[in-house]
Amino acid sequence: MTTQTYRVEGMTCDGCAKAVRRALGTRLPEAEIEIDRPAGLVTIAGAHDEAVVREAIDDAGYDFGGKAA
Amino acid sequence: MTTQTYRVEGMTCDGCAKAVRRALGTRLPEAEIEIDRPAGLVTIAGAHDEAVVREAIDDAGYDFGGKAA
Repeated sequence: MTTQTYRVEGMTCDGCAKAVRRALGTRLPEAEIEIDRPAGLVTIAGAHDEAVVREAIDDAGYDFGGKAA
Repeated sequence: MTTQTYRVEGMTCDGCAKAVRRALGTRLPEAEIEIDRPAGLVTIAGAHDEAVVREAIDDAGYDFGGKAA
């Protein structure tokens, strides 16, 4: 898939958002990552696999909530 | 090594501390993990490899600062 928004729970501060961004960036160096922390949304633009996103979020210690839209 | 305290930078809220705890717990299910978030310290009691701790912290998006004491 190319551009997709996912729900991520538990990003309570900017440090959390930064951590999620870094966890995703390590695994998806080619993708553009946008984080809407207050809404608990992460948008990934660029070819990626949802399973990789889930794993990155899990490993970072946040809750992956699947596709948002 | 058995019990060791490490420096971890960037844990700015309790969500961050929880994320670090989870990232470490996944990789070191047998160890006891104590986090002093304001001080930026993580203590691990139980056999573990420093490289595994470093990787967990890195993957979680925080900065591993090596042994604290």
